[in-house]
Amino acid sequence: MSVIYDRVALIGLGLIAGSMAHAMRRGGLAKEIVGTARSAQTRQVAQEIGLCDRVVETAAEAVKDADLVVLAVPVGVMGAVAEEIGPHLKPGATVTDAGSVKRAVIEAVAPHIPEGVHFIPGHPLAGTEHSGPRSGFAELFDNRWCLLVPAEGTDPQAIARLRRLWEAMGAHVDEMDPDHHDLVLAVTSHAPHLIAYTMVGVADDLRRVTDSEVIKYSAAGFRDFTRIAASDPTMWRDVFLNNKDATLEILGRFTEELFALQRAIRTGDGDHLFDYFTRTRAIRRGIIEAGQDTDAPNFGRAKTGS
Amino acid sequence: MSVIYDRVALIGLGLIAGSMAHAMRRGGLAKEIVGTARSAQTRQVAQEIGLCDRVVETAAEAVKDADLVVLAVPVGVMGAVAEEIGPHLKPGATVTDAGSVKRAVIEAVAPHIPEGVHFIPGHPLAGTEHSGPRSGFAELFDNRWCLLVPAEGTDPQAIARLRRLWEAMGAHVDEMDPDHHDLVLAVTSHAPHLIAYTMVGVADDLRRVTDSEVIKYSAAGFRDFTRIAASDPTMWRDVFLNNKDATLEILGRFTEELFALQRAIRTGDGDHLFDYFTRTRAIRRGIIEAGQDTDAPNFGRAKTGS
Repeated sequence: MSVIYDRVALIGLGLIAGSMAHAMRRGGLAKEIVGTARSAQTRQVAQEIGLCDRVVETAAEAVKDADLVVLAVPVGVMGAVAEEIGPHLKPGATVTDAGSVKRAVIEAVAPHIPEGVHFIPGHPLAGTEHSGPRSGFAELFDNRWCLLVPAEGTDPQAIARLRRLWEAMGAHVDEMDPDHHDLVLAVTSHAPHLIAYTMVGVADDLRRVTDSEVIKYSAAGFRDFTRIAASDPTMWRDVFLNNKDATLEILGRFTEELFALQRAIRTGDGDHLFDYFTRTRAIRRGIIEAGQDTDAPNFGRAKTGS
Repeated sequence: MSVIYDRVALIGLGLIAGSMAHAMRRGGLAKEIVGTARSAQTRQVAQEIGLCDRVVETAAEAVKDADLVVLAVPVGVMGAVAEEIGPHLKPGATVTDAGSVKRAVIEAVAPHIPEGVHFIPGHPLAGTEHSGPRSGFAELFDNRWCLLVPAEGTDPQAIARLRRLWEAMGAHVDEMDPDHHDLVLAVTSHAPHLIAYTMVGVADDLRRVTDSEVIKYSAAGFRDFTRIAASDPTMWRDVFLNNKDATLEILGRFTEELFALQRAIRTGDGDHLFDYFTRTRAIRRGIIEAGQDTDAPNFGRAKTGS
């Protein structure tokens, strides 16, 4: 138990901020956690479940005297929130964010951060398909990666302190530049989400197969896609609108490869298919060895239903 | 505990046959389980772990006096196995299979089934990403669906008996015709598998993002795809080669929809994206309510690594 920031302000009280609140309490990492959210209902739920020490009505109020401010709102509103809080930030404070896109967030937020305040963009690579103030839990970041994307010249001590917070919340920390971040995430997150959304939409649309069949028979593979396709729609709309180039590039590569496999199916080229399917096994093995997924069959899913 | 078939022959001793052996023993559903596999190593492992009561060297030997014969081999070799066992089948016996494709299996197998033997094609919609004789477990079929695809005129008593076996192994049973089966599975299984294989292959290929980054940061969504892309390559090659038309049709629909979403990203049409992402949430809810997946965050994955 060692306090890293005296007062932390969480702007937005969804899955990420909620999990940070739980993780900071688990480790005794903040003396006071102040939270706010745009929706009155979210603030009320947060109040009820005691998610923060104080829930306040506005972001401007939340950041007052805060040593760390975390922007955990959809990427599309980061700029507006930064504009609101800019004049109220304490000199020497650190502002970070949890947005899934970095170049666009930096462009939207940085102009509003006053001299003497450290802006260190961040992105914890952790989440679930659930959202809202009740969805957070202390273990979300355990053994996951958090990427920090500080501009050159950022105060090394401020970076080290934020890194310490993430590590104390259970995460590993890496640093990279914003463009590389956006490309890496396009591959490991944004393109997979769009593809999952697409496949689920196609299944929903298909008139000759009823929804009931799609649902009943989903254990044959389809259900794996539905989890990430159940993620928060506002968050994901903003991700795609703000990481256009990298996402479209990866989707272009994906389509090219998909066409090659479709052609192999059409022409009966079994060797091409077999070789491709053999190669992809190795990545799964690597992910399990890196402790980023479970080797238990079917993700170790709990037995479901009766 | 009530015996449904005196002697059951399992041809192929992978995940499905192995799980059937465990499930039949759990319920006391067969007096004797005889197994065989083409690979001497598989037969030896099966012998070592006592997967069956007897392990024999050939399919012809295995089916001798069997009341139920289960073909649990890749779709591409079903015909050859049927040809081998045809002359050795006991009159009145039932032959079924566990192939993921039905029209092609029926065309390959039916000609070799002699008069007086019941051929009832089947497909349990259950599996994991693991394969081989050690991968089976008794609970695999619990609360999953098994589809039976009998030809018109098949003996209703033989169908009822096979249905009883599947139900006693924990499954629900539906009947449908082969073409509809192949279309339903193209949506719920075959297209999703090909898409997952493709996405994993693309990530593996990308020069500017290292394999190590893809692996470390996979919890951002990508890792969900790697599970089904780690499935048995031989099995899946045969599935695609034997369900060409339906798979290509669904992939065509998928590509069309993906292009529409890419266009929405490029043109900044946030409403289109938001509406699409909202719609896909409902299917996930349906799957959970139908008991076909868990509502626990991240599939209830066990905490991984350290």
